[in-house]
Amino acid sequence: MQFQISNELIEKIKFLVEEKNNEELLLHLEDVHHADIAEILTELSLDEAVYVVKLMDSQKTAEALMELEENVRERILDTLTPKEIADELEEMDTDDAADIISELSLERQQNVIAEMADEEHADNIVELLRYDEDSAGGLMAKELVKVNENWSVTGCMTEMRQQAENVTRVHSIYVVDDKNKLKGRLSLKDLLTAPSRANISDIYIPQVDYVNVHTDGEEVARIMQKYDLEAIPVVDEMGRLVGRVTIDDIVDFIKEEAEKDYQMAAGISEGVEADDSVWRLTRARLPWLVLGLFGGLGSVYVMQGFEEALAKFPVLFFFTPLIAAMAGNVGVQSSAIIVQGLANNNLRGSLFKRLLKELSLSLINGVVLGLLIILFGLIVGQPQLVSLSIALSLLSVIILAALIGTFVPIILDKRGIDPAIATGPFITTSNDILGIFLFFYLSKVILGF
Amino acid sequence: MQFQISNELIEKIKFLVEEKNNEELLLHLEDVHHADIAEILTELSLDEAVYVVKLMDSQKTAEALMELEENVRERILDTLTPKEIADELEEMDTDDAADIISELSLERQQNVIAEMADEEHADNIVELLRYDEDSAGGLMAKELVKVNENWSVTGCMTEMRQQAENVTRVHSIYVVDDKNKLKGRLSLKDLLTAPSRANISDIYIPQVDYVNVHTDGEEVARIMQKYDLEAIPVVDEMGRLVGRVTIDDIVDFIKEEAEKDYQMAAGISEGVEADDSVWRLTRARLPWLVLGLFGGLGSVYVMQGFEEALAKFPVLFFFTPLIAAMAGNVGVQSSAIIVQGLANNNLRGSLFKRLLKELSLSLINGVVLGLLIILFGLIVGQPQLVSLSIALSLLSVIILAALIGTFVPIILDKRGIDPAIATGPFITTSNDILGIFLFFYLSKVILGF
Repeated sequence: MQFQISNELIEKIKFLVEEKNNEELLLHLEDVHHADIAEILTELSLDEAVYVVKLMDSQKTAEALMELEENVRERILDTLTPKEIADELEEMDTDDAADIISELSLERQQNVIAEMADEEHADNIVELLRYDEDSAGGLMAKELVKVNENWSVTGCMTEMRQQAENVTRVHSIYVVDDKNKLKGRLSLKDLLTAPSRANISDIYIPQVDYVNVHTDGEEVARIMQKYDLEAIPVVDEMGRLVGRVTIDDIVDFIKEEAEKDYQMAAGISEGVEADDSVWRLTRARLPWLVLGLFGGLGSVYVMQGFEEALAKFPVLFFFTPLIAAMAGNVGVQSSAIIVQGLANNNLRGSLFKRLLKELSLSLINGVVLGLLIILFGLIVGQPQLVSLSIALSLLSVIILAALIGTFVPIILDKRGIDPAIATGPFITTSNDILGIFLFFYLSKVILGF
Repeated sequence: MQFQISNELIEKIKFLVEEKNNEELLLHLEDVHHADIAEILTELSLDEAVYVVKLMDSQKTAEALMELEENVRERILDTLTPKEIADELEEMDTDDAADIISELSLERQQNVIAEMADEEHADNIVELLRYDEDSAGGLMAKELVKVNENWSVTGCMTEMRQQAENVTRVHSIYVVDDKNKLKGRLSLKDLLTAPSRANISDIYIPQVDYVNVHTDGEEVARIMQKYDLEAIPVVDEMGRLVGRVTIDDIVDFIKEEAEKDYQMAAGISEGVEADDSVWRLTRARLPWLVLGLFGGLGSVYVMQGFEEALAKFPVLFFFTPLIAAMAGNVGVQSSAIIVQGLANNNLRGSLFKRLLKELSLSLINGVVLGLLIILFGLIVGQPQLVSLSIALSLLSVIILAALIGTFVPIILDKRGIDPAIATGPFITTSNDILGIFLFFYLSKVILGF
């Protein structure tokens, strides 16, 4: 049902490239979807991939280039002349072309734009390059279908057909006034079912969701998801229709955002992938490990302060990894739930209610885990006061960790800082130190060393 | 630009409900989008929400009910009679209706279905209930627009308009043969630009991506994302067109999957939300904490085996939380990257290359962190052999943790187990124990206690 890339196909293509058997090669790739062409290019060597790209029709390769991983694309583009890149860009939608051109050096960007034959297309791309890549302006494409409110239904059909030729998917037809200000929308369905004698102003829907070029991508995603939109028009500061964002770009955006939060929780920055270079992976991972190391050295310092316990209650030192793990796990659990609640905008109720909830949650968890510690003590024949002391300290550590995990992200969010940085190594490390300190402090009070 | 729910509006609505001022109430809610109605319902008390739901047109409330959080919806539905629920379901697309009815008890399901007036709609819902909710059959809706390959373009326009009335968004027109077998598709754009005298068989595109009713939801999402599809037809075992999955359902699915992976990494099961009950949250969190506790007790046991070091090198015991934290952090980092690579299907190259990469990565990280340990030792005046021993053990622990973090998810995936369970508490706990054991073992070899 789906096209599957086999090793035989890859071998065949490698062979045909080596033989320079262009005819056979084109025949093999003719009916292959551009997303699959991209996968094939990834499996080839750089020289082979470039050969295929140069051989094939730029309409097909343009779309395949879009689907490639950034690092593979970069290497292929490096071997192409500005003219060859310009030819590819001519075939792309403006948003895709702008994304790709923004990956080039400034000098190369200018050379490529100078080589573009379609001036309007080039203008549009240059306009899109001005916007921040995570804003609605950076996500939108210039391609859309719009009609003037003063046209008649029959009168606009010809115009629309022409516009539709350049647009991959029509979705909505936007209605503008003479100054290009967004007035409303027409759905294709409405048009299909509308009497042919009607006027646009009679049948258009004056309510339309839209965003501003400067609206944050996350907000665009939230609106499109909430209202189940498949495209949303983008207006400039004057309310003029300048582009639209489509759901396929937003799907990628949503996925990337979710992956970033996940990576942040795992102590990885910069949105790396498994196939990135060792150097990039190190840069994304090492800083968090150094943070963890300092946290660990902090724990060393805390324990040196309780050195006198070594003589009488060495067992306490055997329990520190357990205490640290519990403090870390509880903190990560609490913060993950809050971070997701904040991201999905469904955190309701007062802070006080949330406090009560976390307190009762951690009391239940802490009592169960404390009882298990006491049970363990009974089994291995540990002095009961020591077990009791460990259990009580564990309970307090869990409560503290839950409160930190809950309120640090809430506070960060209130101050406009991404709460996701409070998950993972950051919360684990601070909870480790605080947890170990609390553990020894309470043990000292109870056991009196 | 966007509708914002203010406290004043909520207060106003609460007041109007109390006054039973239905006219004013309807006036206030008339132009409000169903997604916003859902938010308003969430802010009201149960009695108030039910009052509003019963008052409003079921077309609007049906869509609002769909947008509600499951627990809020459940409470509202509990107060409605089977007839009232049936009225709501009549207004929904089949996939939404099936999702909602599946939340009811089996007995109530039958009562509701018995009350439905539109028998075909009821039949369709019952059919959808048969499929697993995470399969294409469970995600699809029955509503779609299809034409017979033997029709003429003009001949099918009337039929299509009629079908389109029942479909929220048309996307693609599917082409079937006399036996309802999927043959291809027509795009609305093609139809707009096609000569009116053509036949369907002349203009339809015989290539169409499709999935089977039993295709896993994750696979459906992957295909739709890869090929940028906004809708995909679903066929039964005989190749007959039985429904279609639209991108808005897939967006929700992708988000839920990413959130599940994230929660799994944070040691939370069951896909809970911040507003769930304490009891549900405990069930989702406590088992992972118990796992962590057993891991911690394992570390206690390991350290008891190296008790003799207490006398000569007590400082080693101060470093255990640091070692455990490093082993945990490195393991979580490595596994998160692999889990994402597996989820996105972009893990390429041989296992041996991946091994070399993880080895060099952890060598770099381990050497840097080890040097920091030695530097710390110099500053606090720690015996140099002790510092060196800790640094070397840390390096080994990091290598071990990276290898476990990399290969455990790969092995799980090969055996058909969700690799996401290998992130978070699971990997942290096992790395803690192994790391601490390795640390003491190597320290014993180097320092000789």
